[in-house]
Amino acid sequence: MKAMFTETIQPFLISLSSGGTVIKSRVFRTTGIDESALNEKISDVFEKSTNPTIGVLAHPEGVDIRLTAKAASEAEANILLDGLGKTLMARLPNFIYGLDQDNLETIVGRILTTRHMTLSVAESCTGGLITHRLTQVPGSSNYVMRGYVTYSDESKSDLLQVKPDLIKSKGAVSREVAEAMAKNCREKSRSDLVLSTTGIAGPSGGTAEKPVGLVYIGIADDQMVRGMEFRFSGYREAVKMKASQAALELLRRHCLQMPLKD
Amino acid sequence: MKAMFTETIQPFLISLSSGGTVIKSRVFRTTGIDESALNEKISDVFEKSTNPTIGVLAHPEGVDIRLTAKAASEAEANILLDGLGKTLMARLPNFIYGLDQDNLETIVGRILTTRHMTLSVAESCTGGLITHRLTQVPGSSNYVMRGYVTYSDESKSDLLQVKPDLIKSKGAVSREVAEAMAKNCREKSRSDLVLSTTGIAGPSGGTAEKPVGLVYIGIADDQMVRGMEFRFSGYREAVKMKASQAALELLRRHCLQMPLKD
Repeated sequence: MKAMFTETIQPFLISLSSGGTVIKSRVFRTTGIDESALNEKISDVFEKSTNPTIGVLAHPEGVDIRLTAKAASEAEANILLDGLGKTLMARLPNFIYGLDQDNLETIVGRILTTRHMTLSVAESCTGGLITHRLTQVPGSSNYVMRGYVTYSDESKSDLLQVKPDLIKSKGAVSREVAEAMAKNCREKSRSDLVLSTTGIAGPSGGTAEKPVGLVYIGIADDQMVRGMEFRFSGYREAVKMKASQAALELLRRHCLQMPLKD
Repeated sequence: MKAMFTETIQPFLISLSSGGTVIKSRVFRTTGIDESALNEKISDVFEKSTNPTIGVLAHPEGVDIRLTAKAASEAEANILLDGLGKTLMARLPNFIYGLDQDNLETIVGRILTTRHMTLSVAESCTGGLITHRLTQVPGSSNYVMRGYVTYSDESKSDLLQVKPDLIKSKGAVSREVAEAMAKNCREKSRSDLVLSTTGIAGPSGGTAEKPVGLVYIGIADDQMVRGMEFRFSGYREAVKMKASQAALELLRRHCLQMPLKD
């Protein structure tokens, strides 16, 4: 169906468009930066460019930037898109993870496959969503080794040897617990890379000090372990989705030796 | 927003509808029966009933039956819906799991909460989707204890003590492995109930004997363990979703002491 559309229907529709004009779009997918911060970085480009035009769409996984070019031919439209695309890549070198239909689980899968690296995941607040997203990708059984969903405190100690004393003193939702989960998951799974999450997905369970949306994400390889703090807005489903996206983005950046956070 | 709509906008819109007629719908959600088998069971009701009318919509989670009644008042519309609803419930006593916006993870959550029962999950082909769906429900941390995603053979043995010999002789995708996963997950987690899955999500990995879509689902409590065979159609995402739905439905039926399969 896709091939039929791309090869036959799309060119036909394009040939129908008024005055021999070709209209072509390209989407630059970003994550880890909100709409207003992104606007600040590209507002001057936004204002100056009339062709391609720029549209922005925010959703829980991130913010998409859509360029739409009008030209006499597809080749000319591509030149316009390439030109402005380069500017965007220069302005947002770390935030753009893919184009058009790309998603982070596929991007991360390609990186792991190319490097012959394996991955395991230790999830608390994301409740299996990271492992679910990774395993949506065909061929993921080549690099996804195992996942732990340590939802109860007991399971964190039982499965990942997070010390009950640490949970008591720092809280299950803490950088220290995220790091212990990542470190111990790596040792037990013998995977090259590990992600971990612990946080408060809501709607209940938040306190003044640790509100709903507070999430710690851990990443570990054989050299390092690092836990990072995030604060996500929205209802339970949105917090889970945002946390899973931030975790996959950490992995992408780590593998590509980019700064983990801007 | 919901309350605003229900209390103010909806009655206003209803009052606008022509000739003081009220139109009201109710959806009966089924799973575990395909559209043609369902049609066979209710086609005579379907043909006879002009008010309410009956519409059927199939999706990976199951088949929805939508009744739409026209009456002079909401009360009269409800009487019509209750009447035909009773007929449907009598025809499909085991397949209807909920109404309108209900989903199986919420239904199962309510059952576990009422009975003060805990649940853990051991997933292979569903890759974390069952645990993810269960933990979408607010308050699920009260009954979801832990999840294992044992994607590699090694992790099945390492985390759930599935014997490598069993995997070798029966295959990782087998009733015996699903049962071993469920049994051992229950013992390790000390949860009241356990679900397990092992199967071939595709698109590759299938053979003539074990094709893509073949899934074994295990269920265990302190008295029993049972593995059941399913064959699902569709692409990877559909197979994962259908398998997760079948597993949650097994749990619902087990808890309500209904036959596990018709």
